[in-house]
Amino acid sequence: MSTIELRTRPAIIAGAAIAGRKEGEGPLGAFYDAVIEDDLFGEDSWEKAESRFYLTACETCLRKAGIPSPDVLLGGDLLNQIMSASLAARSLKVPFLGLYGACSTMAESLAIGAMLVDGGHMTTALCAASSHFCSAERQYRFPLEYGSQRTPTAQWTVTGAGATCVSALQSPHTIARVTHVTVGQVVDMGISDANNMGAAMAPAAASTLTRHFTDTGRTASDYDLIITGDLGQVGHDVLLQLMAERGKPLDAAKYVDCGLLVFGPEQDVHAGGSGCGCSAITLNGYIWNQFRKGALRRVLFMATGALLSTTSSQQGETIPGVAHAVAIENDAP
Amino acid sequence: MSTIELRTRPAIIAGAAIAGRKEGEGPLGAFYDAVIEDDLFGEDSWEKAESRFYLTACETCLRKAGIPSPDVLLGGDLLNQIMSASLAARSLKVPFLGLYGACSTMAESLAIGAMLVDGGHMTTALCAASSHFCSAERQYRFPLEYGSQRTPTAQWTVTGAGATCVSALQSPHTIARVTHVTVGQVVDMGISDANNMGAAMAPAAASTLTRHFTDTGRTASDYDLIITGDLGQVGHDVLLQLMAERGKPLDAAKYVDCGLLVFGPEQDVHAGGSGCGCSAITLNGYIWNQFRKGALRRVLFMATGALLSTTSSQQGETIPGVAHAVAIENDAP
Repeated sequence: MSTIELRTRPAIIAGAAIAGRKEGEGPLGAFYDAVIEDDLFGEDSWEKAESRFYLTACETCLRKAGIPSPDVLLGGDLLNQIMSASLAARSLKVPFLGLYGACSTMAESLAIGAMLVDGGHMTTALCAASSHFCSAERQYRFPLEYGSQRTPTAQWTVTGAGATCVSALQSPHTIARVTHVTVGQVVDMGISDANNMGAAMAPAAASTLTRHFTDTGRTASDYDLIITGDLGQVGHDVLLQLMAERGKPLDAAKYVDCGLLVFGPEQDVHAGGSGCGCSAITLNGYIWNQFRKGALRRVLFMATGALLSTTSSQQGETIPGVAHAVAIENDAP
Repeated sequence: MSTIELRTRPAIIAGAAIAGRKEGEGPLGAFYDAVIEDDLFGEDSWEKAESRFYLTACETCLRKAGIPSPDVLLGGDLLNQIMSASLAARSLKVPFLGLYGACSTMAESLAIGAMLVDGGHMTTALCAASSHFCSAERQYRFPLEYGSQRTPTAQWTVTGAGATCVSALQSPHTIARVTHVTVGQVVDMGISDANNMGAAMAPAAASTLTRHFTDTGRTASDYDLIITGDLGQVGHDVLLQLMAERGKPLDAAKYVDCGLLVFGPEQDVHAGGSGCGCSAITLNGYIWNQFRKGALRRVLFMATGALLSTTSSQQGETIPGVAHAVAIENDAP
């Protein structure tokens, strides 16, 4: 049994999404707490800019929650040694548990944060993740100055950061509650193309989703929405196919991918958005908004991560994927 | 209050330490489960070799615990995108929560693992960390082929991996129990020399230790041993001084650093051992052995991490440090 039921149903009392300019121009632009026009956010490097997105999301979330300081910050980002999260944690001066789950980090941090709150170990946990198009391209692919041609399966790393406050406190702000967590296994189907992350991660998503359904006895129809993090168009379609083959089909109308929501078709991002920030800003912007409006009753948020590094790729390794799922319900009894 | 008391006192039911040749020749050589003479461990890169150390430590630990499969693997390493841990998790096929805490990872994984077991979310958590001298030098400093001169404050990254099984099960193998966790804050005192990690991390250790003592009402005399991870000689002495200045002095005879235990003075490692593997193999070799023998009653294990990356150093950033503390007691009632 790898799905954990959280008996106390920890409350999500605030979320914050800080997005870059391109993301602000996308279809979900109205749901972000702030759109930062300057990709450098006043800093002198993309990495420091990303860290400022991270810190701003954390500070905004805490302010909205009315919590001066959480018991713990859980999170990470895509940069080597999670530089964005570490530097933000240094500024926040709160206990910090650094995570690395690649693009699954928003779900990983929310999963661990909710378990620590449920277990009574933390009263309030701040869970956060970020990515930045420019820092990710430089680290994982090519310097932007090369002007490299992007392949059709390539995705566009989201510039932005999201933060969620999970708490055991009774709060008038409660948006929703975390009811279940399914921790993902690492799955590798042999994809080695770093420009086709969706296909590399979809089998991990299928693995986690299958276990979630089996463990809970639920099916796709028990959820108003199943949301993956950044599978993009390719991975989205692979996941639909894999789940159909396993006899646990998804309803294509109720399965969405943050990578397909975050940018519009006219924004020319090829297979969709990606990066830790993709699911982080979508969850903390659009999704929490839908819960607040009462438009959603029960959602499965499942962000996927591609656990590759440039070193592993250069050594001929294929791309291992992981997916963590968090079941979220509205606050109604 | 940032120290968490674990009411169920989760049991440490097994530990395993897999060490490299130089470590095997050190004073703690007899306590390792295996000493691997070949630095490449039969693989074709240092990074894959490190991952094999990781996997071997995990498999050995599970075998000793008599647990075919844990509910979760928690851990990481020093490599970009925690390549060692990710590839090992792929082979283990168990739910995986990737962590990045630099050299604090063994303590971070044990802290989170013990909380998840205490909270009833996991029955058995496998907590593991690794490092490898050759992969770390290549990634953080210079290729070995340069034959760079090492500075007097430099430390020697340990080649090895350690794994601990924490469980809610009643086990005849129980070695000790986890009673408290203090999660560290990120502290940066402005050190920017990547060859002087001990000084960069000691203030974080002082911060965590001070909070641990304040929160629990304990002093250094309540512990048979306080063990830091890899402060080395420089950081060890700085921590003694900082704690004396704060009016919470340590007893120099009962405060040890894994970096000073793991290698002998004749091994010419300058300021001592370092790396995630340093505290991981010392805890899972020597320390668990001392508990089994009844030579230790209560220990505070506090591994420190330097949250730098080559990118942050190249951008002129100083080195943020973090330290997580785990209080461990023998199994006697």
